[in-house]
Amino acid sequence: MTVRASDRWLLRRLLAVRGHPPIEFALWNGETFGSSTGGALARLVVEDRATLWSLVLQPEHGFGDAYAAGRLRVEGDLPRLLELAFRSAPGRSWEWTVAQLATRMLRPNTRRGSRSHIQHHYDLGSDFYARWLDERMVYTCAYFPTPEASLEEAQLAKLDHVCRKLRLRPGERVVEAGCGWGSLALHMASQYGCRVRAFNISSEQIVWARERAKGLGLVGRVEFVEDDYRNLRGRYDAFVSVGMLEHVGPTHYKVLGRVIDACLEPHGRAFLHSIGRAQPAPLNPWIEKNIFPGAYTPTFREMVKILEPHGLAVLDAENLRLHYARTLEHWLLRFEGHVPELEEQFGERFVRMWRLYLAGSIAGFRGGSLQLFQLLFSRTSSNEIPWTRAGVYGVS
Amino acid sequence: MTVRASDRWLLRRLLAVRGHPPIEFALWNGETFGSSTGGALARLVVEDRATLWSLVLQPEHGFGDAYAAGRLRVEGDLPRLLELAFRSAPGRSWEWTVAQLATRMLRPNTRRGSRSHIQHHYDLGSDFYARWLDERMVYTCAYFPTPEASLEEAQLAKLDHVCRKLRLRPGERVVEAGCGWGSLALHMASQYGCRVRAFNISSEQIVWARERAKGLGLVGRVEFVEDDYRNLRGRYDAFVSVGMLEHVGPTHYKVLGRVIDACLEPHGRAFLHSIGRAQPAPLNPWIEKNIFPGAYTPTFREMVKILEPHGLAVLDAENLRLHYARTLEHWLLRFEGHVPELEEQFGERFVRMWRLYLAGSIAGFRGGSLQLFQLLFSRTSSNEIPWTRAGVYGVS
Repeated sequence: MTVRASDRWLLRRLLAVRGHPPIEFALWNGETFGSSTGGALARLVVEDRATLWSLVLQPEHGFGDAYAAGRLRVEGDLPRLLELAFRSAPGRSWEWTVAQLATRMLRPNTRRGSRSHIQHHYDLGSDFYARWLDERMVYTCAYFPTPEASLEEAQLAKLDHVCRKLRLRPGERVVEAGCGWGSLALHMASQYGCRVRAFNISSEQIVWARERAKGLGLVGRVEFVEDDYRNLRGRYDAFVSVGMLEHVGPTHYKVLGRVIDACLEPHGRAFLHSIGRAQPAPLNPWIEKNIFPGAYTPTFREMVKILEPHGLAVLDAENLRLHYARTLEHWLLRFEGHVPELEEQFGERFVRMWRLYLAGSIAGFRGGSLQLFQLLFSRTSSNEIPWTRAGVYGVS
Repeated sequence: MTVRASDRWLLRRLLAVRGHPPIEFALWNGETFGSSTGGALARLVVEDRATLWSLVLQPEHGFGDAYAAGRLRVEGDLPRLLELAFRSAPGRSWEWTVAQLATRMLRPNTRRGSRSHIQHHYDLGSDFYARWLDERMVYTCAYFPTPEASLEEAQLAKLDHVCRKLRLRPGERVVEAGCGWGSLALHMASQYGCRVRAFNISSEQIVWARERAKGLGLVGRVEFVEDDYRNLRGRYDAFVSVGMLEHVGPTHYKVLGRVIDACLEPHGRAFLHSIGRAQPAPLNPWIEKNIFPGAYTPTFREMVKILEPHGLAVLDAENLRLHYARTLEHWLLRFEGHVPELEEQFGERFVRMWRLYLAGSIAGFRGGSLQLFQLLFSRTSSNEIPWTRAGVYGVS
């Protein structure tokens, strides 16, 4: 395929619109454009004309689809390239609005919808996730006491960070909404002496979690329930949900608020941990379609709106954005170490899609288009609240 | 004045509506009602029929006006009595809505309106406040490392708590909006080596603050500017405002957001500290009319809404509600120790009004109708943010 004058014109326009980033483009005939000297952050190889045009005509999906299909190759630092792209992206609020509406209409998080969305992602097989998560299988933002901590140390520190914020005491009853492979539930039971009921609609994860409870001798203390958070019943000293809110969707926040209100004792504490946004925006459409159907990342205000109608007040909030970037760096590194097996099991396209998702998430948290909010709250009328936060840091 | 059957009926209705609180009522003829045994929390003496009826007909103003006029006497624990009253208050959202609208229309916080409102409260004379504030004249919520800390220790700890959250470094330029008598500005300059510009529209406070800067040899490092926050100019490494937002009013939050955005360097950190609410509600109308004209206490969501349009993201939020109750207990205790001089200088009515304001505020913070929010934020695009909050607690 020869390179036409119109192809060159298009590529030059693309580079100009993005403010001439330090990137080298190579076309299918070997011709190069943009920053070709040693200063280039990455080299993008465009394999055909359709791919080149899709970058312009479909800014949200074009890059991801072409990368997944192998028609666009990236040589260099993929997370940094994506961070640069996100930071230089022109405004696109109308596209976001359309994408947001389309998401809610096409993939609503009804009880049935949620189950199908969660299966899409989490039922890929625990063995897949075991290849690149930490030994505890924690698939949410870790807490690095220092940036140099290992992923294993940081996930353990995160579990403690959550438990300390909630000030869990022996014998307390805790309910968890969206428990993943059960690490937090097992930690609350084994290290803080709590009695835990943990909900999840991923069969694959529930089976795994129950096995772990058995292995740890915690069957009498932790109950893993394969059910939707909307079916949560009973009253508890603490409610906790780490990394589920992203899958709830804003049209169901009111229901979540009612569920928390109904299950929390008068003195109870509650905790929400979620990927968020500084400004309202739907999830990146490529990620929503290919990786997380039905997902939505709320702003801080949208999270707090869940509490307000129920006389619940914010006690403590923390943004761990850079910790999620670090967590994802660890995941991507481990993922890259298993590419041959993963390609054999899932195919090259799948591996490229997941690489792009992990690298894109690093870029989002580094660049600030994604945030990570931890929110601790309790009933306004309760005075059984921490006097200070010093205990979270081991200071009495 | 004889007590009529209708008076007795009214008082019994009042007690029934409030759920028969542990309070004894005494009427002007000595007749008593309600909980008269040793279990009564307080004894209310109603001096005349008009006062009795005003408690029912004007639930928002009746109590306060009668108490201030001395027609309603309280024997016993005034803060606990008020906490009980607030907790048992029936819903009154339409009255609140009316009061909120009336406040904004009658006492708008324009530049001129703000000046008049601030003078009403703060220009009572620094000598008045010096009688019951701490030695540094900090008229905002203190931070008690332990509940037993002295007021002096707790106000010093609060200044450090704010500075540590902002991670102030020597040589940084800080702007403060609403600086009171200047304690925080002087502390940032003397203890953290910052160059500070501090704004305030209370002439009385500015004069006092400048004297203190002179006395401490900080004139070259702290500039006290007698001007409105809306006239703030320049670019700074940090923006801080402690206890001013209550006086800004929600119709001016957009302006405040623009001011913060305009003055913050790309790497800058910003901090807002304000009395707040778990649910939207105007200030208690009696307090708004008599103590804080033009004031409004925002919800957490309303505070965060100030940031959102400007690409600013929440980094850290803390609720110090019980610390403000404790702070006010200290203030009330000191206030009571100066009643004879205060009555001589300002009159008995003034003293009763201020006692009711301080006691009512204790009740509001204890009972949860008032909250105290500290909010740290920065530009979404800035990665010069604290890695963890451990440093705030002296943990490296």
